Amino acid sequence: MLKIALSGCNGRMGQTVSKICAGDDRLMIAAGFDVNTEKLFSYPVYSDPFEFSGKIGAVIDFSNPASLDSLLTYCVRYKVPVVLCTTGHSDAQLEKVENASKQIPIFKSGNMSIGINLIMDLLQTMGNVLGRDYDVEIVEKHHNQKLDAPSGTALMLAEAVKGALPYDAEYVYDRHNVRRKREKNEIGIHAVRGGTIVGEHEVIFAGRDEVIEIKHSIISREVFASGAVNAAVFIASQSEPGIYDMGDYVKNKKM
Amino acid sequence: MLKIALSGCNGRMGQTVSKICAGDDRLMIAAGFDVNTEKLFSYPVYSDPFEFSGKIGAVIDFSNPASLDSLLTYCVRYKVPVVLCTTGHSDAQLEKVENASKQIPIFKSGNMSIGINLIMDLLQTMGNVLGRDYDVEIVEKHHNQKLDAPSGTALMLAEAVKGALPYDAEYVYDRHNVRRKREKNEIGIHAVRGGTIVGEHEVIFAGRDEVIEIKHSIISREVFASGAVNAAVFIASQSEPGIYDMGDYVKNKKM
Amino acid sequence: MLKIALSGCNGRMGQTVSKICAGDDRLMIAAGFDVNTEKLFSYPVYSDPFEFSGKIGAVIDFSNPASLDSLLTYCVRYKVPVVLCTTGHSDAQLEKVENASKQIPIFKSGNMSIGINLIMDLLQTMGNVLGRDYDVEIVEKHHNQKLDAPSGTALMLAEAVKGALPYDAEYVYDRHNVRRKREKNEIGIHAVRGGTIVGEHEVIFAGRDEVIEIKHSIISREVFASGAVNAAVFIASQSEPGIYDMGDYVKNKKM
Amino acid sequence: MLKIALSGCNGRMGQTVSKICAGDDRLMIAAGFDVNTEKLFSYPVYSDPFEFSGKIGAVIDFSNPASLDSLLTYCVRYKVPVVLCTTGHSDAQLEKVENASKQIPIFKSGNMSIGINLIMDLLQTMGNVLGRDYDVEIVEKHHNQKLDAPSGTALMLAEAVKGALPYDAEYVYDRHNVRRKREKNEIGIHAVRGGTIVGEHEVIFAGRDEVIEIKHSIISREVFASGAVNAAVFIASQSEPGIYDMGDYVKNKKM
Repeated sequence: MLKIALSGCNGRMGQTVSKICAGDDRLMIAAGFDVNTEKLFSYPVYSDPFEFSGKIGAVIDFSNPASLDSLLTYCVRYKVPVVLCTTGHSDAQLEKVENASKQIPIFKSGNMSIGINLIMDLLQTMGNVLGRDYDVEIVEKHHNQKLDAPSGTALMLAEAVKGALPYDAEYVYDRHNVRRKREKNEIGIHAVRGGTIVGEHEVIFAGRDEVIEIKHSIISREVFASGAVNAAVFIASQSEPGIYDMGDYVKNKKM
Repeated sequence: MLKIALSGCNGRMGQTVSKICAGDDRLMIAAGFDVNTEKLFSYPVYSDPFEFSGKIGAVIDFSNPASLDSLLTYCVRYKVPVVLCTTGHSDAQLEKVENASKQIPIFKSGNMSIGINLIMDLLQTMGNVLGRDYDVEIVEKHHNQKLDAPSGTALMLAEAVKGALPYDAEYVYDRHNVRRKREKNEIGIHAVRGGTIVGEHEVIFAGRDEVIEIKHSIISREVFASGAVNAAVFIASQSEPGIYDMGDYVKNKKM
Repeated sequence: MLKIALSGCNGRMGQTVSKICAGDDRLMIAAGFDVNTEKLFSYPVYSDPFEFSGKIGAVIDFSNPASLDSLLTYCVRYKVPVVLCTTGHSDAQLEKVENASKQIPIFKSGNMSIGINLIMDLLQTMGNVLGRDYDVEIVEKHHNQKLDAPSGTALMLAEAVKGALPYDAEYVYDRHNVRRKREKNEIGIHAVRGGTIVGEHEVIFAGRDEVIEIKHSIISREVFASGAVNAAVFIASQSEPGIYDMGDYVKNKKM
Repeated sequence: MLKIALSGCNGRMGQTVSKICAGDDRLMIAAGFDVNTEKLFSYPVYSDPFEFSGKIGAVIDFSNPASLDSLLTYCVRYKVPVVLCTTGHSDAQLEKVENASKQIPIFKSGNMSIGINLIMDLLQTMGNVLGRDYDVEIVEKHHNQKLDAPSGTALMLAEAVKGALPYDAEYVYDRHNVRRKREKNEIGIHAVRGGTIVGEHEVIFAGRDEVIEIKHSIISREVFASGAVNAAVFIASQSEPGIYDMGDYVKNKKM
């Protein structure tokens, strides 16, 4: 069984990772790192990675950027692969990550959801097979506090489809008051906003007499904790240093 | 059992009405009227209503506007209620309909789908009960040959909701590239276009921690034939002259 | 502005109610009651209602059954309407609630979601208008830890439809391996189970060439907190003693 | 541009193929074969393939089984690949098809929808990537006259998923009245029946905090005509004799 350390173990996401690991027989948490050293689960908690002397196969990091430097030093020194789930790193920190990745495997992904990354992969096939004859549209739904539209994920999905289509697609955001038929090369992108919807993305391929839809719904933002746990098992088995992301995870599972 | 005549009986919609009536024990077709007098079903077909001397309780009209004048004269003379399903009448013809409605019940509806008209009614309640706390959005989907966006039906639904909301709603068709939260008084309306989708309309009420959606899907444009048959049974039981529509049908069924 | 007290203010649901009230200009929390008297929000917290001497228009109760007796005594003595959101009361307690309801308005509902109760109301209309010609099916989806199937809510919705249909409906839970057409009086009820789905209910009316669906999705179990806040505003305006539920709330809003 | 012959050109599906080809610049119909030799489109119609002396690159067959023998003889003699879309062949005929496939490419598929066959392919990947952690459920919806449940297509999809899962899955058709949690190895299959729904299939992968759904909707049974046209372009480019199906088409397009 894989032993891991969990950095930021007492934060909300850290606690979620702890609960997931408790029910997953592939791995166990041997140590937690957190400025708050309260012991909430069965594993010991240290304020500094270097206080922990056990041997582990991977680290999951859900702490804040301030802890990154010390954590990276630890991982490089002991050759421990690491899953970085925090965002908001400085340029200097990103350079350190880059350098560390020459010595250890580092997992770092723009989107930690396995579902979204899997759909990105499937859209390649769907675009190749259906692209010539089917029209592509994307509908995304989010809560009423979201500032940007369409969502970054919707644009990622659109790019993934666009790359697989046999024509040069253009994004269309508004069709009202224009009396004309849909152009073949349009990808309509629609941003629904309301209530506390966590996040839904639907890609529609509408053809002659049939429609194929692929839809992703987030139930809770804690989905990224599940992604991190799977990423830890994956990164622990990588022998080559380098930067890995959720797309690599999906490709690995496909084989 | 109600006996009816079917004007335009040999057209596509006329034939569909004939099939529906064959399986409906509330009514039977006693005569068909059509310029093409081929006998396709069990009832006789006449080129002119006045050739038919039987007694009927209602007429369904799916012929073309050219036959309207003669048909209205017939209906008024014999005091037969009529369901008018054709569109494209001239102003002079609409005036004749208006005049005839002072003597007989006439059923004429902008949208002959019972489902859409029922939803218009339900949206009143939904707007009243949920309006203060829930955000309203509409997504409609149609085939890639449709010229207008949003669909006329989507606008009808939007108007029905708007009338029931406790604030003055504004329609929003495009949210991209505007970094800001959703305003409470927005109704987002989204027009998806693709393939041969016949017609879908979805009204979404998104609140704090719950979402209520009501959705209408047309499987085939022949849905208007079913609406006409139900309208015939309804109009045959009306004793007062006047113009009736599918909203009256829904209100009648609610009681 | 309505002043209320919140019993069980420091529990998970109590905290959610506090956040909702902070953004709702119809009401404010004047006092919290909780065995844990930590002050988490702007209002004072008392371990016993009788310690609080202010005047309030309603109480919301999200504490546990053990606090009920003291809370009811308080509400009856000061003639304060109360929204009871806890479950698991003993028979003796239910009798006390019954007795108290002869002196004050008490809100108590099997399901505190406004959405579900609104749908129950709409299903009456849908059953009346569509019942003769449309087939009714229900699909519900819940997480993989749920013990019962179909859900209690699905059965409530089925009963609501059944009562409005012009025939005596029978529930069907399994169609496999039986080669026969659907009987008109069937209501198919389908229980999908998977992952951590919080709760979805969809009622389908499928007719000739059209389908009408009404769907309810819970995003988070905290939806009951929103329901309680609206119930408090509602119950505070009731002058007659008695038991009120979310169905009364919906009926009141419709008018 | 590929020239093809269309067998059964004046039947409903034949006419649909003709309309599709009229708008497709990859191929044109050079001849029609039909017992009814009425000329409905721009191409000549022959009662017997051997009356036609032009050169073609493929044949699409939507006639009835009675015409198969003569058509196969024609295709083998002139080395023309053929897309067989009819069903209901006798054992003797199936043997002839088998023999012919040793000399020419023959396209013959249990399901002529590109969408369904594509989904079968995607389900392999989805099962591989998500299988360990996500629960799989299938919901299919069909009209109220359908005799079998679940649909043959639903079972095909279930088999495709099952083959890619890391455990031995069991199909579950009924969960009511059994108080217990979902077992990991269940695949729930739900058959909704109502109205005139043409055919919908939805495969759900529900995991911790996210759900991925893939859905196929048939708008009209004429979808098989589109599939046949694409199959004709595909089979015309195959140099090796043999039996090909829609799965081969999808695999070919993926590359």
